[in-house]
Amino acid sequence: MRRLVERVPTSGLRTTAELRLVALPDFPRVMRGDDLAGFTAAALTRAGLALRSDDVLVFAQKVISKAEGRQIDLADVVPSARALDLAQTVQKDPRLVELVLRESRRVVRSAKDILIVEHRLGLTMANAGIDQSNVADPAGGEFALLLPEDPDASAARLRDRLCVLTGCEPGVLISDSFGRPWRVGTVGVAIGCAGFPATLDLRGQADLFGRPLRVTVVGHADEIASAASVLMGQASEGCPVILVRGLALRAPHQPAAALLRPQQQDLFR
Amino acid sequence: MRRLVERVPTSGLRTTAELRLVALPDFPRVMRGDDLAGFTAAALTRAGLALRSDDVLVFAQKVISKAEGRQIDLADVVPSARALDLAQTVQKDPRLVELVLRESRRVVRSAKDILIVEHRLGLTMANAGIDQSNVADPAGGEFALLLPEDPDASAARLRDRLCVLTGCEPGVLISDSFGRPWRVGTVGVAIGCAGFPATLDLRGQADLFGRPLRVTVVGHADEIASAASVLMGQASEGCPVILVRGLALRAPHQPAAALLRPQQQDLFR
Repeated sequence: MRRLVERVPTSGLRTTAELRLVALPDFPRVMRGDDLAGFTAAALTRAGLALRSDDVLVFAQKVISKAEGRQIDLADVVPSARALDLAQTVQKDPRLVELVLRESRRVVRSAKDILIVEHRLGLTMANAGIDQSNVADPAGGEFALLLPEDPDASAARLRDRLCVLTGCEPGVLISDSFGRPWRVGTVGVAIGCAGFPATLDLRGQADLFGRPLRVTVVGHADEIASAASVLMGQASEGCPVILVRGLALRAPHQPAAALLRPQQQDLFR
Repeated sequence: MRRLVERVPTSGLRTTAELRLVALPDFPRVMRGDDLAGFTAAALTRAGLALRSDDVLVFAQKVISKAEGRQIDLADVVPSARALDLAQTVQKDPRLVELVLRESRRVVRSAKDILIVEHRLGLTMANAGIDQSNVADPAGGEFALLLPEDPDASAARLRDRLCVLTGCEPGVLISDSFGRPWRVGTVGVAIGCAGFPATLDLRGQADLFGRPLRVTVVGHADEIASAASVLMGQASEGCPVILVRGLALRAPHQPAAALLRPQQQDLFR
C-alpha cells in the first residue's frame, strides 16, 4: 500500500499515512441541467488545488438530484388511497407519502413521524431519501427532491466529464445521510460510486500472527462518505463537494450497489 | 463554525474547510499495563506533530483492550451448557461462545457462523466485539480479547493522562468496526469518547430557506471513527492511533453512550 512520506526525521526511515479532506469553496447553488463537473473544476481552481487521478470527489446527493432535475412540484402530485391511509399513520403530507411509495419497493416500518422503506434502488432508508429541506422555488412553491434515478450511473457520467475537463480520472462518490438501527444519529453513506472500490475484501489476508482476519469485508465507500460528511456538516450547505486525497486503493472499480446486502444474506434480520 | 483559511486568492475572501487525518507512525505493540498516552506522545514527536486541544485522537479498541489486560486465556474458560448448545448452532469455539454470553445481555440472532448479541454496554454487534485476531502469546496459547470494561471511562482516563503529558486537552475516541443491517461491509464506529460531542444536535436550526432541517441528529463520533478507519485500514495493524485535525465543534462533551438508541425509540425495529 502507498504511504505518504512526511516530516521524516533525519535519524531514521519513518513513514506517515495521511488523509486530507478539503471542502471545495463557494460551490454555486445548483439548478436543473447545471454542469457539476464544470462547477467542480472551477471550484478546484479557486481553491488552488490540482486534481489527481488518485483523489476521490464526494458529492452530496442533493446537488446531483438538483442537476438531474429530480425536483417534483408537490402541487402536481395526486396521492393514491394507499398514500392517504399511510399519511394518516405517519402524520406526513400525503403528497410526500405518495412520492415515497412511488420510489419504494416496500414499506419496512411506519408509525407516527416514521416511514422507513426499501427504496427501488435497494436502499433501506427513511422517506425513500426524499428531501424537503433546501428545495425552494422563486415562486414560493413546495417541492420535494428525489434521489437520482441511478446514482452509480450518475457517478460514472460525472467522472467521465471530469476526465474530459481535467485530464484526471478521479474517483467519484455520491453521498447521502442515513439513520441506522440501534444507533443515534445519521451518518454519511455512499449511494453512488465510480472509479474506485466501494468495498474492500480482506478475505484471505492473514493478521500479524497468521490467523485469518475475522473482519473480512470493509464498507470502504461508506467510510469515505462518513468522513466527507463530517466536513460537509461543518462547512454548511454551501460546500456539497469534498475532495479526499491520500486513499491507497484504486482498484477494482466497484459501484455503490455492491454495498447492498442481499436480503437473504442479512445477518441482522 | 471555524473555518481554515487556506490558499486565499488575493482577489477575494475565500475560505476552505479542511480535515486532516494522520496515522501515528511506528506505534509499538501494546501489552497489558502499557502507557498508551506515553506511547502516543512519543509517536506524535516522532511524526513531528505538536498536539492541539482541538485535535481528536482515535484509538483502535484493540490497543485499549490490550493495555487494560482484557485478554482472556481460552484454556481458562469452561463453557456452560447454554454455550455448548449455542456453539453447535453457530459453529464456533464453545469457549469463545461462553465469553460472548458473559459479555452480553441477550442474543439478537444466531445461525451458522453468525452470533449477533446486545453487549452489556448496549452495543448490538457480532460476537460481543470479541476479537481472536492479532492476539498472540509468547507460549503459543489461544487468547480472546474483550472490549474495554467501560470504553467511555477509558477514553476519559486516556484524555486526562494526555493532558498531563502534553499540556493539551484533545478529544479521545475509541473505535471499533461493526457490521450493519442491510449493507455490506464493516464501518468504524465510536464505542468510547471524551472531550468532544459524540452526536451533533441540529434540531431547531433552519436550512437555507428557513424550513426546519429534516435530519436533526448527526452521529458525529461514528463519522469520525469511520474516517479514521479508512486510514487504519490502509496503514496496517501497526497504526492503531489516528490524529484528526480540523474538527469545528468541541462542545458539549458527550460520551459514546449517547450514540446508543434506547430500544423503544428504535425506528427500524
